[in-house]
Amino acid sequence: MARPLIVATHNAHKTGEMRAILGDLFEEIEDLTSIPDLVPPEEDGDSFAANSAIKALAASRERPDALILADDSGLEVDALHGAPGIYSSRFSGEDATDASNREKLIADLDGIDEPRTARFRCVITVARGGEVLASFHGIVEGQIALEMTGEGGFGYDPLFIPDGFESSFGQLSEEVKNSMSHRGRALEQFREWWNGRP
Amino acid sequence: MARPLIVATHNAHKTGEMRAILGDLFEEIEDLTSIPDLVPPEEDGDSFAANSAIKALAASRERPDALILADDSGLEVDALHGAPGIYSSRFSGEDATDASNREKLIADLDGIDEPRTARFRCVITVARGGEVLASFHGIVEGQIALEMTGEGGFGYDPLFIPDGFESSFGQLSEEVKNSMSHRGRALEQFREWWNGRP
Repeated sequence: MARPLIVATHNAHKTGEMRAILGDLFEEIEDLTSIPDLVPPEEDGDSFAANSAIKALAASRERPDALILADDSGLEVDALHGAPGIYSSRFSGEDATDASNREKLIADLDGIDEPRTARFRCVITVARGGEVLASFHGIVEGQIALEMTGEGGFGYDPLFIPDGFESSFGQLSEEVKNSMSHRGRALEQFREWWNGRP
Repeated sequence: MARPLIVATHNAHKTGEMRAILGDLFEEIEDLTSIPDLVPPEEDGDSFAANSAIKALAASRERPDALILADDSGLEVDALHGAPGIYSSRFSGEDATDASNREKLIADLDGIDEPRTARFRCVITVARGGEVLASFHGIVEGQIALEMTGEGGFGYDPLFIPDGFESSFGQLSEEVKNSMSHRGRALEQFREWWNGRP
């Protein structure tokens, strides 16, 4: 039986990670390119949970029949008092790119000694019929490296070294990263919920 | 194996419902009377989800070893533009009681024709180690009656007639109410998550 899932993102990297992690549960995992009429909502919540719910509900209202899964995630750096946090994807301004955000992070941490402790957080929200059903949280603790390493992952991955590893998320294989990343852990909670359904 | 669960509430009615619904999953279900040192947090979130998380995290920081389950719930009345909503428990002011809140609701709806559509919402947040793990949402649609009926339940229950029934939550048996109430439905999602854990 086909059980389509729509991921409320235009970020092909996120869709790819979802497919890698949840591909055994859903025959088809689409993203917002399958809802071209959707007006992207303003993500004006004050937490990852709030913004994740905003994205899930906007997509669910447009496609009430589908199971919607939205992600909001970001990086909290202790030396920056939790920044960039919910502003991770627009840290360097309106026209931010992954590269410009990483440059700003490197610059802002200039002169700050290691260990530069930080964590990635992710909140996955599941919606159907225009209502939130549940949300699942994941965290991975680590440090911000002095310089980028690796070509894998996306966003701040080449700067983030998870606790217990010497390599950044940009260097680790997709399989290893997904097994302990913030998104992987949140999706693991989602999987447990899904598995427990009658 | 004992798996204690702490419900982040001082409301004995809520603890009782949790025990009735989840008693088969946890040998012991305690509430905040088991954490006498806890300073009740200010519930200043802008949604049921935010306030539910605030309560769960406050208890989890005090008892990081325990599994914490917090509930935030309330009534949304369409003719009152969603009020009392997150203010359901303090609708009639600082010293609100269940009785004074019901009186205010009856007064505020005076002259408004049936059906006076409304819904109960509940968000259950699960925390451990000072972090949110997941949250689960439940909704039940219904109407506000012209007058109170029944002695069961608590809060607005004697005024709320769920869709498909002629009786209020105050008249229905605990078993029937829990099978389709907002809290029962949110806890059913929690149960599915819990059951799916390896």
